[in-house]
Amino acid sequence: MSVRPGLGELGLGAGKRARLYRILHEHGLRNGTAIFLPYDQGLEHGPRDFFAHPAAGDPRYVLRLAVEGGFNGVAVQIGLAEKFFWEYAGEVPLILKLNGKTDIPPDGEALSPLNATVEEAVRLGADAVGYTLYVGTPAQDRDFEQYRRVRADAQRFGMPLVVWAYPRGSAIEAKGGKDSFYAVDYAARTASELGADVVKVNFPHPEKRTAVKDEYDAGFSSQQAIDAVVRSANRTLLLVSGGTKAGDDAMQEKARESMEAGATGLIFGRNVWQRRHDDSLRFVAQLRDILAKYPSST
Amino acid sequence: MSVRPGLGELGLGAGKRARLYRILHEHGLRNGTAIFLPYDQGLEHGPRDFFAHPAAGDPRYVLRLAVEGGFNGVAVQIGLAEKFFWEYAGEVPLILKLNGKTDIPPDGEALSPLNATVEEAVRLGADAVGYTLYVGTPAQDRDFEQYRRVRADAQRFGMPLVVWAYPRGSAIEAKGGKDSFYAVDYAARTASELGADVVKVNFPHPEKRTAVKDEYDAGFSSQQAIDAVVRSANRTLLLVSGGTKAGDDAMQEKARESMEAGATGLIFGRNVWQRRHDDSLRFVAQLRDILAKYPSST
Amino acid sequence: MSVRPGLGELGLGAGKRARLYRILHEHGLRNGTAIFLPYDQGLEHGPRDFFAHPAAGDPRYVLRLAVEGGFNGVAVQIGLAEKFFWEYAGEVPLILKLNGKTDIPPDGEALSPLNATVEEAVRLGADAVGYTLYVGTPAQDRDFEQYRRVRADAQRFGMPLVVWAYPRGSAIEAKGGKDSFYAVDYAARTASELGADVVKVNFPHPEKRTAVKDEYDAGFSSQQAIDAVVRSANRTLLLVSGGTKAGDDAMQEKARESMEAGATGLIFGRNVWQRRHDDSLRFVAQLRDILAKYPSST
Amino acid sequence: MSVRPGLGELGLGAGKRARLYRILHEHGLRNGTAIFLPYDQGLEHGPRDFFAHPAAGDPRYVLRLAVEGGFNGVAVQIGLAEKFFWEYAGEVPLILKLNGKTDIPPDGEALSPLNATVEEAVRLGADAVGYTLYVGTPAQDRDFEQYRRVRADAQRFGMPLVVWAYPRGSAIEAKGGKDSFYAVDYAARTASELGADVVKVNFPHPEKRTAVKDEYDAGFSSQQAIDAVVRSANRTLLLVSGGTKAGDDAMQEKARESMEAGATGLIFGRNVWQRRHDDSLRFVAQLRDILAKYPSST
Amino acid sequence: MSVRPGLGELGLGAGKRARLYRILHEHGLRNGTAIFLPYDQGLEHGPRDFFAHPAAGDPRYVLRLAVEGGFNGVAVQIGLAEKFFWEYAGEVPLILKLNGKTDIPPDGEALSPLNATVEEAVRLGADAVGYTLYVGTPAQDRDFEQYRRVRADAQRFGMPLVVWAYPRGSAIEAKGGKDSFYAVDYAARTASELGADVVKVNFPHPEKRTAVKDEYDAGFSSQQAIDAVVRSANRTLLLVSGGTKAGDDAMQEKARESMEAGATGLIFGRNVWQRRHDDSLRFVAQLRDILAKYPSST
Repeated sequence: MSVRPGLGELGLGAGKRARLYRILHEHGLRNGTAIFLPYDQGLEHGPRDFFAHPAAGDPRYVLRLAVEGGFNGVAVQIGLAEKFFWEYAGEVPLILKLNGKTDIPPDGEALSPLNATVEEAVRLGADAVGYTLYVGTPAQDRDFEQYRRVRADAQRFGMPLVVWAYPRGSAIEAKGGKDSFYAVDYAARTASELGADVVKVNFPHPEKRTAVKDEYDAGFSSQQAIDAVVRSANRTLLLVSGGTKAGDDAMQEKARESMEAGATGLIFGRNVWQRRHDDSLRFVAQLRDILAKYPSST
Repeated sequence: MSVRPGLGELGLGAGKRARLYRILHEHGLRNGTAIFLPYDQGLEHGPRDFFAHPAAGDPRYVLRLAVEGGFNGVAVQIGLAEKFFWEYAGEVPLILKLNGKTDIPPDGEALSPLNATVEEAVRLGADAVGYTLYVGTPAQDRDFEQYRRVRADAQRFGMPLVVWAYPRGSAIEAKGGKDSFYAVDYAARTASELGADVVKVNFPHPEKRTAVKDEYDAGFSSQQAIDAVVRSANRTLLLVSGGTKAGDDAMQEKARESMEAGATGLIFGRNVWQRRHDDSLRFVAQLRDILAKYPSST
Repeated sequence: MSVRPGLGELGLGAGKRARLYRILHEHGLRNGTAIFLPYDQGLEHGPRDFFAHPAAGDPRYVLRLAVEGGFNGVAVQIGLAEKFFWEYAGEVPLILKLNGKTDIPPDGEALSPLNATVEEAVRLGADAVGYTLYVGTPAQDRDFEQYRRVRADAQRFGMPLVVWAYPRGSAIEAKGGKDSFYAVDYAARTASELGADVVKVNFPHPEKRTAVKDEYDAGFSSQQAIDAVVRSANRTLLLVSGGTKAGDDAMQEKARESMEAGATGLIFGRNVWQRRHDDSLRFVAQLRDILAKYPSST
Repeated sequence: MSVRPGLGELGLGAGKRARLYRILHEHGLRNGTAIFLPYDQGLEHGPRDFFAHPAAGDPRYVLRLAVEGGFNGVAVQIGLAEKFFWEYAGEVPLILKLNGKTDIPPDGEALSPLNATVEEAVRLGADAVGYTLYVGTPAQDRDFEQYRRVRADAQRFGMPLVVWAYPRGSAIEAKGGKDSFYAVDYAARTASELGADVVKVNFPHPEKRTAVKDEYDAGFSSQQAIDAVVRSANRTLLLVSGGTKAGDDAMQEKARESMEAGATGLIFGRNVWQRRHDDSLRFVAQLRDILAKYPSST
Repeated sequence: MSVRPGLGELGLGAGKRARLYRILHEHGLRNGTAIFLPYDQGLEHGPRDFFAHPAAGDPRYVLRLAVEGGFNGVAVQIGLAEKFFWEYAGEVPLILKLNGKTDIPPDGEALSPLNATVEEAVRLGADAVGYTLYVGTPAQDRDFEQYRRVRADAQRFGMPLVVWAYPRGSAIEAKGGKDSFYAVDYAARTASELGADVVKVNFPHPEKRTAVKDEYDAGFSSQQAIDAVVRSANRTLLLVSGGTKAGDDAMQEKARESMEAGATGLIFGRNVWQRRHDDSLRFVAQLRDILAKYPSST
């Protein structure tokens, strides 16, 4: 088991440290772990994600869920932040997602354009900003340049930067796919090398070995894989993503292995709000029970 | 029926609120509903749109019609605003349409370039600005970036932002087309996620189901479809577009269903001015009768 | 009697015209005249002005009075605009007063510093900005420079500029005082020469002749004086100020002479809100009766 | 008793609201009241203020006291914020004091120069900024201009602005002095007119009547005086300052009257840290008992 | 004895820390202490300072002395830095003195103007910048503003900022003079409050008690005084200045008491170079013997 680094070891300026302290030690379990609620699927996938549980199409419903469920933060695009966050301002940390796109055009050269700025996140009282970096696409150079400006602004304003590190594009598809251990491990390290404060990754699948680099073409367990991914992220705090809705037991096992590896927490959206309200809260309570076993010092 | 949100619930600053109040409560029926007159077809389609009723090719004629018909606003490009609006300044709210293009080149990678700025809209005394966002085209990333700057300026100047949310491009054509329920619903949500104050959509066609996402491949009624679209727009006020001229009864039925769903109003151009003057006023009066039944509080 | 110029004769761009149209033809009597409610005395004189009628110390009370009394606008400083106007946004035009000061230090070199900008007025949805120009003080050069930047911004944003033209300073005191015909006439012309759209003056006192320039040292009637002042303002619309609370009959006579001279209207603060609520409304109704006799065309 | 306004009534944008929510509802008593610990006396008066209790000369001691005493915020200059706040980042809200001066030169034309910017406050993770406005000095015009830029930046970044509203200068000395009811009441209103979110005033002394304006030359009780001052501040939240160290009973009586009047809280420095550590905590506990009786809703 | 803080406790970013590490741990005794050689007297006093030892008028001579004497840095104005430092670049740390003035005009409203920028210091390879802050003069507000910009630039470029904190002006002269314990103590604290990384002060004279604040009007020893001054500087590293040339024993006693109090080191100019070369080196060796007894950790 890796030991999760404390906030004092990350080389952070006072602003990033104050904001991460608020997220990790003044919300949720207040023990240095975190569960975030992402809610940008209305843009990334369209309203179809709400058909399973129409109430979740209403941003008020989801913000209220974030408060009631004791989440450490909720991640939304600028439009929902402007129109809905003011009612809950201060009650739950806001992660303003700065870029995003629809899934209508094909994904081969995916680049997620900026829809908002770090300065706007400051104005809205956000405690962090989010950026989707598509690792490995042919548009990677434009993506890195766009990202660099966001990172520099985040540094200037003392705003923690959460990177959604998503392997993507035809080259990734040809080498094990976007959630292979190879791809996820590379994405975690890329976020760390490029200065993310927090990185969100999919849980790695060591069994997806088709055409991956030789080093990954071996019989790793999922625990070994997530251990390695957390090590690759080093002083970039790591969040494991839930992805599409799956069985509760499987999700909890993922969560347990991630925390055991030294992850800071989870970022679960559809697994949380694509179900009835009381069922959402029950599921979150189970996740909190897991996180409670992995406190970290400030 | 969704309940239309009042201006006080939208998280608006004073300037956007004052200007929307003027549009919705000091013009037209003064009951929180709206009918807008768009008049940028001379650029978007060319003068051919005026052949049916040549008088409508004269901007003075259309501005006068906007005043006489008790419209809540008229949407024009910068050139007509500069040369014609001064005579009617203050008599009818101006929505300065900021981008626009001809329909001469093919539409596969459509991007509507900026022809004016929010600051120019302020200088002209406009009460809102309009932006055409082509949702789902391959040029989506450049469109989103261009849009972001407009949104930020609109925020800075307290100017309401009306987004013409148009699904467009080859991927859309391959998935049900630009006025399928799937496409329109996604477009409405996109405008909301990206911070539009008002969104203009085409009336959704739930029967266009070829190759749409699974969730939309079911027997929805048109009322169910427009209900969903209004919900997807949430706190972004929704206007239903008239599109090409159609039968009056069909248009009125669309209007009725839209208002029943919680839309704020209508934006009808060709259906209004592609006919004789008295016929235009008669048709508008019928639409007003419908809107009068759906007042909202401030 | 001078004929008040219509909005079409003032050489205004569309934005200034649209906003003045709203003020003069969409609020109050909607006949081209205006009564404004100034409410910056809390800064200019301190809370002592509210001791006569404590309810008027509450900005909500005064804003409500502006709406109920059918005023054409209310003039406040940025702080009250930010904290109170949003509730009434759009219901009554806002004139954002851009400069202001306390009356604590001595007035000999009075200069009223900028507390807000034209751009902030745009953001708040104001329909005009106000600027106090101290005509004739030793600090006149700094005042003119500061004013020039405000005027240029007002031009750039199409925002009508209302100048509080106040003769002030030791030189004025030595030549008939700040409300002599000489001083008021000079102040009105100064505002016009320097590009004000609207000028607010005190009612001129032709009997204050001690040490005034020879031309003013003659037996002018008050009607002759205000006629001349309105002519000096030429295409700058003129408002007559109420000043300290005085008898109702005297105020109405001032109002009648001013309108007869071609003034556009009145700007009465303490005379309105330093009395009981129903008495305020009764007094305003009397003033409206006078203004109703002096309509102007658009 | 005035009713203290809730955060939802103040016309605040999301960022100011989120940060004030954190200060008022996530620290201290979490009931909408506040006790702040100001610690800029080392600059304003010099180290002599620490001779009574030398431990308090060490910023670590005072920051720790702020955390242990459950303060709602600590106000320091940029130098101490840079060198000491990082250790406590997130544990107690930081109010970065933006201007300040030594008391060595004479005070007749006092102007407190800017030592830091709002952007630096953002970078440090501050939850508010502080500005000392000297109301009534001959340098008032330069002070207002400097303040205006701070206010505009605070607006732009969604950062609450706390104004230390201090009557000062020879004209104030000639009219009752800096803590007369007249002077304090005017200062509170000035902060409100100029857009402060929170105002810090000294407790008013209605018995200081020499040469004050007539309205204040009457037999007001101290409760009547503080009631009026809170009303003058209207939607600007009011903090009462402790000033030089005085008897505990007198301080508590001031606190009680202030809260009864509708103040939001207290800002006590020397009264807190110019005594032994356990005595500080005991005194603060007494103040908290008072504040606990005056909760406000969010 | 205060314990001198290590570099890791100062809240420094990486750049300031790297440069201070070079100064304190890679030059001189390499034990965390420092002796600096200031050489801006040619501007501050004119060439008269070189008459006692003409060779010292040649900047090459002094730079060579800095290298040979094992100094931790040499402080010069931009002109000498441009023309002479290149020959010794990297051999001895450069402190670029950013402001400075002649002593020809009277000192009552002293303000030391900027002669160079932090960016120029970067270009020249300097390891720190120096700024003279005149604490307590009537021009204090302009001085603080000029300083603020330097401090912000130093922060932005990661450049350590050394403040020459000099009490000055008529008010200081009237209260014990510029090297009274009161004045020096206040100056040290001011540098700390305003964000200096290192502060240079004159050795305090507790016996200068005429008209000082009461707290300082007591029988303090010089050790007690320098102890207090170091505490007032807290996490701002403190250097004691040599001032005019004095007896070696007295200087060494000052040095000993300063180091005992927790100072980081000495900044001795005229005492070093206003004597023969070998005598300079001998004197410096004696000072180094003292500093060797006060190592600090990194």
